[in-house]
Amino acid sequence: MTYKIAVLPGDGIGKEIVDQAVRVLTALNLDIALEEAPVGGAAYDQFGHPLPPSTLELAKNSNAILFGAVGDWKYDSLPREHRPEQAILGLRKNMGLFANLRPAILYPQLANASSLKPEVVSGLDILIVRELTGDIYFGTPRGVRTAEDGAFKGEQEGFDTMRYAETEVRRIAKIAFEAARKRNGKLCSVDKANVLETSQFWRDIMIDVSKQYPDVALSHMYVDNAAMQLVRAPKEFDVIVTGNLFGDILSDEAAMLTGSIGMLPSASLNASNQGLYEPSHGSAPDIAGQNIANPLATILSAAMLLRYSLNESAAADKVEEAVRQVLAQGLRTADIYEEGAEKVTTSQMGDAVLKAL
Amino acid sequence: MTYKIAVLPGDGIGKEIVDQAVRVLTALNLDIALEEAPVGGAAYDQFGHPLPPSTLELAKNSNAILFGAVGDWKYDSLPREHRPEQAILGLRKNMGLFANLRPAILYPQLANASSLKPEVVSGLDILIVRELTGDIYFGTPRGVRTAEDGAFKGEQEGFDTMRYAETEVRRIAKIAFEAARKRNGKLCSVDKANVLETSQFWRDIMIDVSKQYPDVALSHMYVDNAAMQLVRAPKEFDVIVTGNLFGDILSDEAAMLTGSIGMLPSASLNASNQGLYEPSHGSAPDIAGQNIANPLATILSAAMLLRYSLNESAAADKVEEAVRQVLAQGLRTADIYEEGAEKVTTSQMGDAVLKAL
Ligand SMILES: CC(C)[C@H](C(=O)O)[C@@H](O)C(=O)O
Ligand SMILES: CC(C)[C@H](C(=O)O)[C@@H](O)C(=O)O
Repeated sequence: MTYKIAVLPGDGIGKEIVDQAVRVLTALNLDIALEEAPVGGAAYDQFGHPLPPSTLELAKNSNAILFGAVGDWKYDSLPREHRPEQAILGLRKNMGLFANLRPAILYPQLANASSLKPEVVSGLDILIVRELTGDIYFGTPRGVRTAEDGAFKGEQEGFDTMRYAETEVRRIAKIAFEAARKRNGKLCSVDKANVLETSQFWRDIMIDVSKQYPDVALSHMYVDNAAMQLVRAPKEFDVIVTGNLFGDILSDEAAMLTGSIGMLPSASLNASNQGLYEPSHGSAPDIAGQNIANPLATILSAAMLLRYSLNESAAADKVEEAVRQVLAQGLRTADIYEEGAEKVTTSQMGDAVLKAL
Repeated sequence: MTYKIAVLPGDGIGKEIVDQAVRVLTALNLDIALEEAPVGGAAYDQFGHPLPPSTLELAKNSNAILFGAVGDWKYDSLPREHRPEQAILGLRKNMGLFANLRPAILYPQLANASSLKPEVVSGLDILIVRELTGDIYFGTPRGVRTAEDGAFKGEQEGFDTMRYAETEVRRIAKIAFEAARKRNGKLCSVDKANVLETSQFWRDIMIDVSKQYPDVALSHMYVDNAAMQLVRAPKEFDVIVTGNLFGDILSDEAAMLTGSIGMLPSASLNASNQGLYEPSHGSAPDIAGQNIANPLATILSAAMLLRYSLNESAAADKVEEAVRQVLAQGLRTADIYEEGAEKVTTSQMGDAVLKAL
């Protein structure tokens, strides 16, 4: 069977970094058919929509999506429904990609890149499991209206609805417990149960699901405290599971702890293991087209794609090992460069990974 | 006129730290009448409610509230409406304390206490202005119900409502712009306008209010990015203004950047300058009663009380200067102790501040 992969480079540095990941995937001698389509601002320019029906169709009919990045200042003044980010939200929702896996790993050679003290972060290896299709991201009703009650009755107000149904919490819990079981057996569920009904509901279900995982130690933490503990002692975490909104904030905070967000991949999976794979960083329009962006997060996203959607874990291992090798060789793109290392371009980094394969 | 101050020590280390702040307030030779009342778990034990009507009445009839901390594990199994935190939420809501000011300051002598590299945080001095009586904290409807629409119709779901009315955003904007004007003229409004209607509404009003403050540079940042930038380069911020939920998370993250949360005060003000003043740290039941907690955050909260609710800025300056002096003298409670310093108890730290006054 041929694996079908939709390649959606997007905007900014998207094309350059995805190009390198495509080279890696192609070099593995797997039966892969790649097909490219526009997404984000690039798609808006061409089709008047950041996620054209043809792109969504292609994505749905693929085993996996290799995604670059979307966004550029020039689209900032568009109405929200036409902005590049809507493509990501649309893909997540339409494909039911509810499970976002975001590792925050600090490669030992890059410990200096962090703004944290090396002893606090070196060897960091945590996994954030973020629910991705529910919560206040998609909850209705939402909008702007005249307030019908409360102290500001009669005034204009903006409003959104946070909501989680039982199935949504159970299925992300399962993903998180399974992941913790394969790692160090520690799962921290982050919520705001002292204030939010949604969080108390979430927490109760986490506790219920935990009964099926006696080998995993479940703990609970309020989101404000989690934001603190990530700064204070991030290595005390193993797996964190949380809702869409808190996960957005905490996964970015955790990524930045490493100081090398150019190295961090992510996966967004649905119930049939279709997945969208993208670097954790953005489209960086300021350096687009200069061949200096770091392609490693995208290459590592391709490794996650091999592991989770194609079930080709041997190939995934090979790619990850190749990345470790190029780091060990001292090769660095500009974002992770430090004195004594060898500064390379985007495509040179791709060359090196291919060679190491 | 006699200033009336309600003293609410609360639980855990609350009493010890508030005692020291009371000594400081008393030593200033101002016409102050202090009256104490129970709050939090202590109040629940005595009156069956974390915020008894008599305590609320006292607070409402005071110029300011000096608050310790609430919470203890032994109350964790109580139904939510009886848990200690409800006292804080109740005071905020009933007194309309909508403006939370949380400085994150790193005293030069304590730079080592941070988990961040000294060059990243030394000299940090940012102010987070958090809206405190609106947002998803108090928005209705909220609860657990059978879902009436969406993909999980018919299932149980937890839900909450995020909402902000125009007046609520305008008044916190005003506080933030005024604060920025008195500082370095930079205001960063944090929201999630690429996803939330409430945020877009918030952002539009911030922009509108900014027209009255041409001397303040307003910028906007998404909350996920703000969580990252606080880790990467916190000194690039001056004043941050944000909603209740995002403010909860970001102000705690910012506090932890300093590594010395035992030093950080906070103020929560209403439209008539009544205020609740409390340390940014919690009740630390594990060290309660041992006379080792750091009273400086509470003493600095008393300084904020003098400044904002009593308009006694000379006295506030004196207290803050006294705190700087004891730090310069090398006195440290256990939480901020490092080799070479002189370790002191809670009351010894209070003695030293009194002496420095
Ligand atoms: C672009 C934006 C809508 C998105 C999100 O908030 O989920 C992004 O921040 C992310 O984390 O993938
Ligand atoms: C105790 C809790 C309800 C409270 C909040 O979330 O506001 C606390 O975290 C704070 O920041 O003062």
